[in-house]
Amino acid sequence: MATIAQQSQQDTAELIRALALAGRQAQRRLAAMSSDEKAEALRQAAQALRADASDILAANARDLAAGEANGLSAAMLDRLRLDEARLEGIAAGVEAVAALPDPVGEVIDTATPANGLALSRVRVPIGLIGLIYESRPNVTADAAVLCVRAGNAALLRGGSEAVHSNRAIHAALVRGLAAGGVPEAAVQLIPTQDRAAVGAMLAAAGLIDMIVPRGGKGLVARVQADARVPVLAHLDGNCHTYVHTAADPAMAREIAFNAKLRRTGICGAMETLLLDASFAGSEALLGKLLDGGCEVRGDGRAQAIDPRIVPVSDEDWDTEYLDAILSVAVVDGIDDAMAHIARHSSNHTEAIITDDQAAADRFLAEVDSAIVMHNASTQFADGGEFGLGAEIGIATGRLHARGPVALEGLTTYKWLVRGSGQARP
Amino acid sequence: MATIAQQSQQDTAELIRALALAGRQAQRRLAAMSSDEKAEALRQAAQALRADASDILAANARDLAAGEANGLSAAMLDRLRLDEARLEGIAAGVEAVAALPDPVGEVIDTATPANGLALSRVRVPIGLIGLIYESRPNVTADAAVLCVRAGNAALLRGGSEAVHSNRAIHAALVRGLAAGGVPEAAVQLIPTQDRAAVGAMLAAAGLIDMIVPRGGKGLVARVQADARVPVLAHLDGNCHTYVHTAADPAMAREIAFNAKLRRTGICGAMETLLLDASFAGSEALLGKLLDGGCEVRGDGRAQAIDPRIVPVSDEDWDTEYLDAILSVAVVDGIDDAMAHIARHSSNHTEAIITDDQAAADRFLAEVDSAIVMHNASTQFADGGEFGLGAEIGIATGRLHARGPVALEGLTTYKWLVRGSGQARP
Repeated sequence: MATIAQQSQQDTAELIRALALAGRQAQRRLAAMSSDEKAEALRQAAQALRADASDILAANARDLAAGEANGLSAAMLDRLRLDEARLEGIAAGVEAVAALPDPVGEVIDTATPANGLALSRVRVPIGLIGLIYESRPNVTADAAVLCVRAGNAALLRGGSEAVHSNRAIHAALVRGLAAGGVPEAAVQLIPTQDRAAVGAMLAAAGLIDMIVPRGGKGLVARVQADARVPVLAHLDGNCHTYVHTAADPAMAREIAFNAKLRRTGICGAMETLLLDASFAGSEALLGKLLDGGCEVRGDGRAQAIDPRIVPVSDEDWDTEYLDAILSVAVVDGIDDAMAHIARHSSNHTEAIITDDQAAADRFLAEVDSAIVMHNASTQFADGGEFGLGAEIGIATGRLHARGPVALEGLTTYKWLVRGSGQARP
Repeated sequence: MATIAQQSQQDTAELIRALALAGRQAQRRLAAMSSDEKAEALRQAAQALRADASDILAANARDLAAGEANGLSAAMLDRLRLDEARLEGIAAGVEAVAALPDPVGEVIDTATPANGLALSRVRVPIGLIGLIYESRPNVTADAAVLCVRAGNAALLRGGSEAVHSNRAIHAALVRGLAAGGVPEAAVQLIPTQDRAAVGAMLAAAGLIDMIVPRGGKGLVARVQADARVPVLAHLDGNCHTYVHTAADPAMAREIAFNAKLRRTGICGAMETLLLDASFAGSEALLGKLLDGGCEVRGDGRAQAIDPRIVPVSDEDWDTEYLDAILSVAVVDGIDDAMAHIARHSSNHTEAIITDDQAAADRFLAEVDSAIVMHNASTQFADGGEFGLGAEIGIATGRLHARGPVALEGLTTYKWLVRGSGQARP
């Protein structure tokens, strides 16, 4: 006989199945809507978010009170917190997505092989996207509207600490979208906080087409390890900057400072600095970081540069600090630098600083990360900065989409074949 | 203490890990080769296959003798069999792949956002591709050279019934490629037939970048169910042809006959025919199929058309016969036809036969399969017919690549960012 826990797990799996089927049905209707119709529905959703501002902020206040009672950290509470300005930011973000060009229907290429068939590949929505995320309630709107813009349905699983905020945002979104003709089941928020719901989503191959986890490393690692459904995720942003011998010292200093300290908590923040042994400006560069409050952990040669540098451990090279901490190695030339990167990189973003074009070209060609930069701060690794308008995440996997993923990454394609009666010989 | 079976499983996992690491290292050297260098190495591999013809055929004779002794079916033995002509076909296929344009390095798009960074997305190899296949020894060459053309390393796991043939083909390939400068570990054949090797490949997330299964439904289903590594696969080709009321009767008859009976064993063969109730040519169309030796299983209305039609069962609608058997439903209009397809299709290939352009446009837009055709035989669903030169398979999943997958589907991209000292504001 099934235990109560097993029974509950089975009920949750049934719930996810029912929601997924409803989402898939809604997606087919959404896919038939024109680009303008979808954009108009998104604008209505933005208006609904503004109209519901006081309800949403009241719901958020409940979450914040519960979070404080449960001892959430100040950083967690800040991620959870909404105010008038943040809510207006969410609504404006929805309007910005509405204004983005719709990738659906775009013809990728065409061909007419010898058999006379007219072939074309056209972009189509992926289908039903599952979002699994943690404390930030803005993801409820940001991710859902990106899905809808590209004709996808979304099945949302938010964090329990944001449950009231998510419900209030979701209610406004769905009302606005429905006013614009989008079926309600196109954006569904899973109504239970039962943890089995995540497992059921990960197991829903054939029902959910892709899962996007948004949150800490623990969440993303679990999703990647357990999913039977394709996952679009980045696990780590262990980003490197290599300062080549031919780097301009002032440029290298400014870029390294920005890459590390502009915002330490984003995935594009530099975590390891590789200083060429023959680069002349290392002392000033490290001094600026140390003066700026950065803890610098160095290998033997790096420690010799400034007495404030503390010893680095083996684990440091594989650590994404997301904090004002930096590991520094002194390397002997570009091959040494690229070998270090190949060993330790998470394939997110790496940069070279140099005025030597040949060295830059080699680095761009040979470093195998989603984003490879020359003479720029790794903190630019961002869909907004890349002109994509928004992003659903930065992918460090190798298939489908890499780097900042926006609307195009939320589509796939199909082949259209137009014949005139051909039978295959 | 570990049992012997556990110990052996662990040894196999270690072996796969060692091979994968060697393959990844070789792939980095392969990725640095120019398009011309890779093409020349492939031409040398074709010559080596020709030079080793007698060894390869002798090895194949051993496999055939063992297969007969083990009671393999005539169809299995035919898939296994090589002769001078088939071997020359394999060598010529390698040369054809060498002549295909190399997708690596292609610039997909460029942009210069407001921050002044010059962005470009360029195609790069995926990395290490795992191939798991059954009795056809030609896959050893066909799949490996497609991988190499696009700069990928290949880790091959062939069927035990073809073990000697695969080893002989692999030895020739590697010798030829090495003469052209491709590292030997770029194409590795797993030296053990231990079944645990497949499990170890499927579990090798982070070591193998993508797995392509080639073989029967059992193999593909197992790979899709168990893999922790992304899989490029099609499970079923349950292809439909819908004959619309405005179809030209002669065209519909010829296309349906070709789609079903030209070759019944390929994944693009039609398995279900949907006849519009108001189409005038159904009797002649079905008569031609029945006269041609096709077993036709029909619903009540279809059975009324010809007394030779036998009753269809519910499972038939979801069955890929790969044989001279066809299920037939009479439908009432395009919506009814598309609803049947949405319920039963495997999203491989579907076709509409009609002279009504508006009906064709709707079908092409709304049917959500990898390939959607108008006035053509579903048997055209093939990379060669699509002008791709070759294919590694036909994907029915939704991410990365759909339909016939050739060289482009064996690449991914990275973002190159060229700055002039930008720090992010």
